[in-house]
Amino acid sequence: MKTAVYPGSFDPVTYGHIDIIDRASRLFDRVIVAVLNNPSKTPLFNTDERLDMLLTATREIKNVEVDCFSGLLIDYVEKKEATTVVKGLRAVSDFESELQMALMNRKLNRNVETIFMMTSSRYSFLSSSLVKEVAKLGGCVKDLVPEYVNDQLMKKFEKQF
Amino acid sequence: MKTAVYPGSFDPVTYGHIDIIDRASRLFDRVIVAVLNNPSKTPLFNTDERLDMLLTATREIKNVEVDCFSGLLIDYVEKKEATTVVKGLRAVSDFESELQMALMNRKLNRNVETIFMMTSSRYSFLSSSLVKEVAKLGGCVKDLVPEYVNDQLMKKFEKQF
Amino acid sequence: MKTAVYPGSFDPVTYGHIDIIDRASRLFDRVIVAVLNNPSKTPLFNTDERLDMLLTATREIKNVEVDCFSGLLIDYVEKKEATTVVKGLRAVSDFESELQMALMNRKLNRNVETIFMMTSSRYSFLSSSLVKEVAKLGGCVKDLVPEYVNDQLMKKFEKQF
Amino acid sequence: MKTAVYPGSFDPVTYGHIDIIDRASRLFDRVIVAVLNNPSKTPLFNTDERLDMLLTATREIKNVEVDCFSGLLIDYVEKKEATTVVKGLRAVSDFESELQMALMNRKLNRNVETIFMMTSSRYSFLSSSLVKEVAKLGGCVKDLVPEYVNDQLMKKFEKQF
Amino acid sequence: MKTAVYPGSFDPVTYGHIDIIDRASRLFDRVIVAVLNNPSKTPLFNTDERLDMLLTATREIKNVEVDCFSGLLIDYVEKKEATTVVKGLRAVSDFESELQMALMNRKLNRNVETIFMMTSSRYSFLSSSLVKEVAKLGGCVKDLVPEYVNDQLMKKFEKQF
Amino acid sequence: MKTAVYPGSFDPVTYGHIDIIDRASRLFDRVIVAVLNNPSKTPLFNTDERLDMLLTATREIKNVEVDCFSGLLIDYVEKKEATTVVKGLRAVSDFESELQMALMNRKLNRNVETIFMMTSSRYSFLSSSLVKEVAKLGGCVKDLVPEYVNDQLMKKFEKQF
Repeated sequence: MKTAVYPGSFDPVTYGHIDIIDRASRLFDRVIVAVLNNPSKTPLFNTDERLDMLLTATREIKNVEVDCFSGLLIDYVEKKEATTVVKGLRAVSDFESELQMALMNRKLNRNVETIFMMTSSRYSFLSSSLVKEVAKLGGCVKDLVPEYVNDQLMKKFEKQF
Repeated sequence: MKTAVYPGSFDPVTYGHIDIIDRASRLFDRVIVAVLNNPSKTPLFNTDERLDMLLTATREIKNVEVDCFSGLLIDYVEKKEATTVVKGLRAVSDFESELQMALMNRKLNRNVETIFMMTSSRYSFLSSSLVKEVAKLGGCVKDLVPEYVNDQLMKKFEKQF
Repeated sequence: MKTAVYPGSFDPVTYGHIDIIDRASRLFDRVIVAVLNNPSKTPLFNTDERLDMLLTATREIKNVEVDCFSGLLIDYVEKKEATTVVKGLRAVSDFESELQMALMNRKLNRNVETIFMMTSSRYSFLSSSLVKEVAKLGGCVKDLVPEYVNDQLMKKFEKQF
Repeated sequence: MKTAVYPGSFDPVTYGHIDIIDRASRLFDRVIVAVLNNPSKTPLFNTDERLDMLLTATREIKNVEVDCFSGLLIDYVEKKEATTVVKGLRAVSDFESELQMALMNRKLNRNVETIFMMTSSRYSFLSSSLVKEVAKLGGCVKDLVPEYVNDQLMKKFEKQF
Repeated sequence: MKTAVYPGSFDPVTYGHIDIIDRASRLFDRVIVAVLNNPSKTPLFNTDERLDMLLTATREIKNVEVDCFSGLLIDYVEKKEATTVVKGLRAVSDFESELQMALMNRKLNRNVETIFMMTSSRYSFLSSSLVKEVAKLGGCVKDLVPEYVNDQLMKKFEKQF
Repeated sequence: MKTAVYPGSFDPVTYGHIDIIDRASRLFDRVIVAVLNNPSKTPLFNTDERLDMLLTATREIKNVEVDCFSGLLIDYVEKKEATTVVKGLRAVSDFESELQMALMNRKLNRNVETIFMMTSSRYSFLSSSLVKEVAKLGGCVKDLVPEYVNDQLMKKFEKQF
C-alpha cells in the first residue's frame, strides 16, 4: 500500500489545497494531510481548529486522513510508513523554495521521495495568507474556501473588532 | 473620464515611483496616488508624512492627486469611481506577487483592471526599503529620491542616533 | 482620444488574446489589433487569414480595429497616432522578453508607453503554438479558440494529411 | 495497478533521466518510458537507437518498460491504461514550459495527472543537448551518460568527421 | 595586490560558504570574509561565535582573513583597499536580490565591482537558515557544515531544551 | 598573472559587452575576448568581421586581447593558461542557462572558474540579436553600439535590400 503525506500549515485550508488532496487521493492508496504544528509561528487558527476544518473539508474522500505533526517532516513520514511527500506548486517562487526543501529532505533521507503537483490554473493566485488578508478587510472569500472555513474566518475576524 | 489608482506604501516615495506616476499621468485623465494605511505594519514615516512627501514630489503633475486608504484596494478603487489599478514592475520577484494580487483582485471585482508598467531600467534596482537601509547606514541617496525626501530621511535617522 | 496598439502574430488568435482585447477595449477609446507581418518567419496562416480570423473574433467589440504592419512597432504606433502598446503577460518567461522589448522600445521612442495586462488565469497555459501543436495531432481545441478559428485549423491540418 | 508514463526525447538518455526512472519505478507499479517520435524534429539518434540505449540503461529495473509513441501524449497515456505522467524538473525554465504543458494536458483530459520529480542536484546542469554539444566537441561525457551511450555518441561523432 | 571581500551573515558558516571561499582564494591575492554585524537582526550565534567558527573553518587557506563590519558594505570595502565584492549564487531568487544589491552598490561607488560565483550543485539547496531549522528539530547536518560548527549547533540547541 | 577569458558570439559587439570588458580589465591582469567560431550557426558577421569590430572597440583598453576559438571553451581556456571565464548576466533567463554551462564546465575541468558580472542597468535590455533586429528594420541603434559597428550594420543591411 502506497502512502503519501501532504504537509502544510493549512491556516486555513483553501480550495487550492482541496484540489491537490483530491487529485493525490487518486494517485495513492492513502493520503495523510499533515498539519505542521510549528511553535515558532503564530497561526490565525490553532492546530485543533485547522484539523477540524480539514476534517470537514475532506470527509468525502475515503482514503484521506488528517493528522498533525511537529519536528522533522521526514521523521514523521517514516513513522507513518509513507514513502512520498506531495507538494502543490503554483508559481516560480514556490518552485525554488520547494526545490530547496525537497533536496534537503533527500539529503536527510534518500528513501523519502517528494513529488509535485501543479495547482489548478483557477487557483493559481490562491494562498491561505491572501485569503486571510482579504477576509480580514471584509472581502468575500466564498469562492476560495469551503463554506465551513468561510464561517470560521468570519467568526475569527468578528471577534477581532 | 478615465481614472487610475496607483497604490503603494511610499515609505518614502522614490524616483522610481515618480517615474511611474509621471508616465501613468499621460495615459489617464486622472491618477490617484493612494497611500496604503496598513495598521499591522510599522512604517518609517507615518501616513501624514508620506502624503506630505508625495504631494511635494507630484505637485507639478496636474492630473495627479494624493490620497490614503485602508481596507480592500478594490473597494477604494470603486469608491473613487476609478476603473484601473496601476502597478510598477521591476523584476521577476515583483511579477509573481503582483500577478497573484491582480488575479485575486479580478476575482473580487471583475470591473477593476490592473495594468503594469515597467520601471525605467535606471531605477530597476531601487526600492523604498533599500533607500531606507542605505540612508540609515549613512549612504548618499540624493540621486534616488527627491531633495525634500532626502531631507526627511536625514532628519529621521539623525533623531535615531 | 487615447489609442492603443495590441501587436502580435495571432497565428491564430486564441481566447487568451480575445480576453486581452476585450479588457483593453474598456481602457482605451480605440484599440488597434496589429498583426505582425514578419517575412523571416513562416506562419501557419498567412497575413490575410490571420486578419480574417481576428475580424471575425472581434466584430462585436465596437472600438477595436484590426490591421497589419511590418517594420518597427514604434514606427507603426506613431503613424497610427497611438501612444500605448498593450501586451499580455502569462508567465515569468514572457515577462523577461517583454521587459527587454519594452525597454528597447522606450529607448527608441520615449513617447510610446508599453502597458502589460495579466492573462486570465484560465488561459495562463494557452499559446498559439500550443494550440497548433495540439490541433495538428488531432486534439480538440474547441475551448481554446473561437469556433471559426477551430474550423480553419481543422481545414489547414486536413490538407496536410 | 498504477501505471505511469515518463515521456521524452531521450536523444540520448542521460544519468539525469535514469535517476528519474529509477525513483519513479519505486512510486508506481509499472513505468513506461515513452520515446517521442516527432517527425518535425531531426534527432541525433533515430527512434530505434534511442529505444536501444534506453533498454540497455534500464534493463535492471524490473517494472520499467520502454516504448515509443507519436501523436498526443494524453492519447498514448490512455491507450496504455496509465493515469499519470511523470516529468523531471531541473530549473525554473523547465518549470514554466512544463507547467504550461501540464495545464494543457489537464484541459484535454482531466483523468490524466502530471507529477513532477526534482532532478538530483548533481545532475541539475545535465541535458541531452548539452551532452551532445560537449561530445561533439570532443569533451568527455563518461560521468554523464551510461558507458553504452558514451560509445554510441563516440561512434556517431566519429562518423561525422 | 587584488583584494576581495566576501560578506555575509555566516550564521553559521556552511560547506556552501567554504566552497565559495576556497574558490575565491584562488582568484584573488587576498580574500576577506566579512561577517555583517547587523544590530537589527537577532542571529543564533553572536558575532564572536561566528568569527570563531569561520576562523576554524578557513585556517588552512592561507590568503583568507576573517573580519566583521557594520555600516555600508562599500565603505568597508574601500577602507580595506579592496576592489571587489564576491557573492555566491544558488538560485533565481538569490539572483534577483543580489542583482538589486550589486546595482545599488555600483550606484554608491563605481569603483567597487561585484562578482558572482555559482555555488557548487551539491550545495545548491544549502542555506544557514535551513541548517539551523534542521538542527533545531534534531536532524543530522554533519554533511552540511564542518564538524566544529556541528558541535556548536548541538550545544546551542541543547541549551534551548 | 591572472588571465580571464570572456567568450561570446559578439555578432556584433554592443555597449553592453564593452561595459563588461572594461570592468573585467580592472579585475584581471589580462582579458582575452574570445569570439566563438561555431560552424553550425550562421552569424550576420563572419569571424573576421566580428574580430575586426571587437579590435576597434577595445583598442584603448591595454590589457585586453581579441581572439577566436572553436571547440570546447575549457580547452581553449587551458591552452591560453587562463583560469577564469567571465560572463555577463542581464536577466533571470540568462542566469539559468549560464548556470547550467558553468556547472558543466566545472564538471569538465575543476580548475577553470566561471565568474559572473551584472550588466549595467542601462544596458539590461540590450542584446546583439535585438540590435540586429532593430537595425534591420531601419531603427536607430547609435546609442547601443560603437559608431564603427553602427556603420557595419548599416552596410550589411543596405546590401540586403
